[in-house]
Amino acid sequence: MSLLIVGTIGLDSIENPHGKVHEVLGGSAVYASVAASFLYDNVSIIGVVGEDFPSEHIMLLKSRGVNTDSLHFAKGKTFRWKGRYNNLNQAITLDTQLNVFQNFNPKIPEDLQESPFVLLGNIDPEIQLNVIRQIKKPKLIAADTMNYWIIKKFDQLIEMMMHIDLLFINDEEIKLLTQKHYLYDASQKALEYGPSVIVVKKGEHGVMVVKKDFYFFAPGYPLERVIDTTGAGDCFSGGFMGYIASKGTITETILKQAAIMGTISSAFNVEGFSVDSLKNISKEKIQARFRDLKKFTQFE
Amino acid sequence: MSLLIVGTIGLDSIENPHGKVHEVLGGSAVYASVAASFLYDNVSIIGVVGEDFPSEHIMLLKSRGVNTDSLHFAKGKTFRWKGRYNNLNQAITLDTQLNVFQNFNPKIPEDLQESPFVLLGNIDPEIQLNVIRQIKKPKLIAADTMNYWIIKKFDQLIEMMMHIDLLFINDEEIKLLTQKHYLYDASQKALEYGPSVIVVKKGEHGVMVVKKDFYFFAPGYPLERVIDTTGAGDCFSGGFMGYIASKGTITETILKQAAIMGTISSAFNVEGFSVDSLKNISKEKIQARFRDLKKFTQFE
Repeated sequence: MSLLIVGTIGLDSIENPHGKVHEVLGGSAVYASVAASFLYDNVSIIGVVGEDFPSEHIMLLKSRGVNTDSLHFAKGKTFRWKGRYNNLNQAITLDTQLNVFQNFNPKIPEDLQESPFVLLGNIDPEIQLNVIRQIKKPKLIAADTMNYWIIKKFDQLIEMMMHIDLLFINDEEIKLLTQKHYLYDASQKALEYGPSVIVVKKGEHGVMVVKKDFYFFAPGYPLERVIDTTGAGDCFSGGFMGYIASKGTITETILKQAAIMGTISSAFNVEGFSVDSLKNISKEKIQARFRDLKKFTQFE
Repeated sequence: MSLLIVGTIGLDSIENPHGKVHEVLGGSAVYASVAASFLYDNVSIIGVVGEDFPSEHIMLLKSRGVNTDSLHFAKGKTFRWKGRYNNLNQAITLDTQLNVFQNFNPKIPEDLQESPFVLLGNIDPEIQLNVIRQIKKPKLIAADTMNYWIIKKFDQLIEMMMHIDLLFINDEEIKLLTQKHYLYDASQKALEYGPSVIVVKKGEHGVMVVKKDFYFFAPGYPLERVIDTTGAGDCFSGGFMGYIASKGTITETILKQAAIMGTISSAFNVEGFSVDSLKNISKEKIQARFRDLKKFTQFE
């Protein structure tokens, strides 16, 4: 009953008002699988790393119980991203080196083809579709995307969306995708592309989960100190999918709880660089923030 | 036990993707008092109009039970605003004519000096302070402000804020006011200026209500058709304050409910130009949206 997570694994160099880090562990599949690992104990990661990828990072994933058996080790250098945040909300990409990721097109091993739950990080929609076609009995396939693919591979993205159950997308991206100015309109339009659930990530404004005739809104978790927002969206998706996988089924009650769990996961993540502060998560801390979010949103 | 609302009364000309209206009823005090009138039956408006102000607008206010006895009729033309929205979120001001509003500095009649609840629309902080000084036994004084005053009259705004209980402000404005990038930080900082409650209005992302050790988040009400967002913030404040006045006291439970009532008021407003769609509000429709918002936010 694996939760299969496919995406980038990389080394990030980041400058922001709180500091500067050089080639730290990053990538959508890494953030998502570490976040998911706190909510579900059968998480498998698929991605590619180069010869220079420090094995301590693999040890970290293993220590979180993430199945790394299907990581692909390729000749060449690991994917690298360099970015600067002038405030903490918006990253300016200074440099992207695809390196071994350039030829990434994973063949899913037979046992993982049986995964009921699949999370496709923000990668080329053609590769996402290639993965989807290998999955035999999915219960829920979710995918993330970004502006770059919406502009460069719109047709392939639309094709991919016909084969997923849930789309993770941020507020700017869904407006670009649907050419609608309001998130309500935009999410209704996005439902027409195929997914039965749209999850709009709005940064500090929280998330909205939209199905036909179903809405759920969760605020961002209020934090005193935000250190680095890199990976926040992926931690949200990882926590969300980890929770769904732990329940094994998808009801509206579970969708709501999953959105809260994703919110909590990303709130832990932004309290440090890389996956550093995710390491401090505990069941008790998750429960405390769950209770907080109830208090912050419930009314009589 | 009046709710006193002080602010602009004007004639708005608006162009947006849904149409074009010429010199329709507008102004912060108008939107707020019409919205408040659906939740509380003792609302008084103070503002100034010119000789050209159509009396049908006064009749509309009266028909909503709003006390217009202290409206000031001045020689000259009514305040006018002209704006264009390229999408529905952000207005570009094409023209502002202060006209009779230029010399507005109201003397509050004796009976209204006893008002326990006061809402100061977004006007010059010096005028806001002048009104505050005339109020004898306030239970809750709330004020709104905007970028213009933050930039042009920062010191006066800070002085004014020392004398209010609640600040209504939007997300961009509070970041400018406090020089903080995160709404959590920004609202904490704003509390230091004097108000014990900060209400951050975030458009379609909803609102957050912040006190020391208290948070509440309400999402925007999802609407199929948004026609014009002019006055949405004022309708929020009016609905919020109308609800508080109807309860006569301020508890955390009531603050939360007030935020929901404000959200519902502004959702009705944006479904039409001017105050047109506010006229369709009924107790039943408010209650239905109240139940909806519960469903959209509550989780187990």
